[in-house]
Amino acid sequence: MLVHTDYLWFKTQKRQEFVRITDEIAEVVNKSGVKEGTVLVSAMHITSGVIVNDWEDGLIHDFQTWLEKLAPAGQDYRHHQTGEDNADAHLKRTIMGHQVVLPITNGTLDLGPWEQVFYAEFDGRRKKRVIVKVMGI
Amino acid sequence: MLVHTDYLWFKTQKRQEFVRITDEIAEVVNKSGVKEGTVLVSAMHITSGVIVNDWEDGLIHDFQTWLEKLAPAGQDYRHHQTGEDNADAHLKRTIMGHQVVLPITNGTLDLGPWEQVFYAEFDGRRKKRVIVKVMGI
Amino acid sequence: MLVHTDYLWFKTQKRQEFVRITDEIAEVVNKSGVKEGTVLVSAMHITSGVIVNDWEDGLIHDFQTWLEKLAPAGQDYRHHQTGEDNADAHLKRTIMGHQVVLPITNGTLDLGPWEQVFYAEFDGRRKKRVIVKVMGI
Repeated sequence: MLVHTDYLWFKTQKRQEFVRITDEIAEVVNKSGVKEGTVLVSAMHITSGVIVNDWEDGLIHDFQTWLEKLAPAGQDYRHHQTGEDNADAHLKRTIMGHQVVLPITNGTLDLGPWEQVFYAEFDGRRKKRVIVKVMGI
Repeated sequence: MLVHTDYLWFKTQKRQEFVRITDEIAEVVNKSGVKEGTVLVSAMHITSGVIVNDWEDGLIHDFQTWLEKLAPAGQDYRHHQTGEDNADAHLKRTIMGHQVVLPITNGTLDLGPWEQVFYAEFDGRRKKRVIVKVMGI
Repeated sequence: MLVHTDYLWFKTQKRQEFVRITDEIAEVVNKSGVKEGTVLVSAMHITSGVIVNDWEDGLIHDFQTWLEKLAPAGQDYRHHQTGEDNADAHLKRTIMGHQVVLPITNGTLDLGPWEQVFYAEFDGRRKKRVIVKVMGI
């Protein structure tokens, strides 16, 4: 059994930003030597997420508008009494999910035709990390 | 270490439909020979999900009504400028989640008393696939 | 390859309650002997969840207020025709997620600086279980 660990770093320019990472994950899987197994891709910070969806500009805009409606910024959140201003980012990342497990078959990511992996930042402009853990044979 | 891969195919009659798949997953686990491990069950299309919840008709109705409220169809989504009409399905599947990892103990799915696995379709009437990846010993 | 299984039991005093379980998970990982791998932490009941977020009182209050808005209790849910009164708990746990997979590196949970694991109860005051399944080498 092989286990291989890598980390991706992000520092987005905007507070909220989605970044496509499918190719970076594929590269880690390739490096791992795993032919059959899975790879865990998980945000290590609690105001960002990792998701699988369609990498289409319009849809990404829809996601961001929709999240703003379900979990709006600038409200009177209790969390802000600690000096923070990002409670909405915690809520947004919870709706989106903070991790995915991707299957590896015949040495490559076994994804459907439109599946793309993306990092979803909700409180950016600072360094954040995603762990990529490959397990298999 | 054993790794076994299978795929389930779906073509629902309705646009939105939930399908119980616990028995199909159990069968794949049985076929794999894995006694201790996990099985990843993941939708390969981005407008459907895989979830664990109670398989009760009333609750399923509640889920669908609720999702329609949180992520309504027929809105003026930016994604629709591409010719698509299913932005709501992308959002609904995001709330529900698109994958689960189920534990296997003593050769069977180690589920709680009411846990059932179901495929959640939000843009059906066409062929779609779910990957089932068993890993363990 | 090692696979180790454990269960955590909960009986919360309130209907809705969040419980920090990072240390309990770390202890199971330690007992398992796994140095490189992952641990699945999954609620075995369908009205509770397992999540990773910031363990901060204000934020936990925000989560609960927010969930009450998105999935309110006391509505006329179809599920209640079965005699149940907890449809909202099924919905709340769906938004939060019912399981996480945590990476293990060098024999310890490989978590970011603020990541804490917590059990999220939405229909408590009775015994419930969470499975902890460690896999790796």
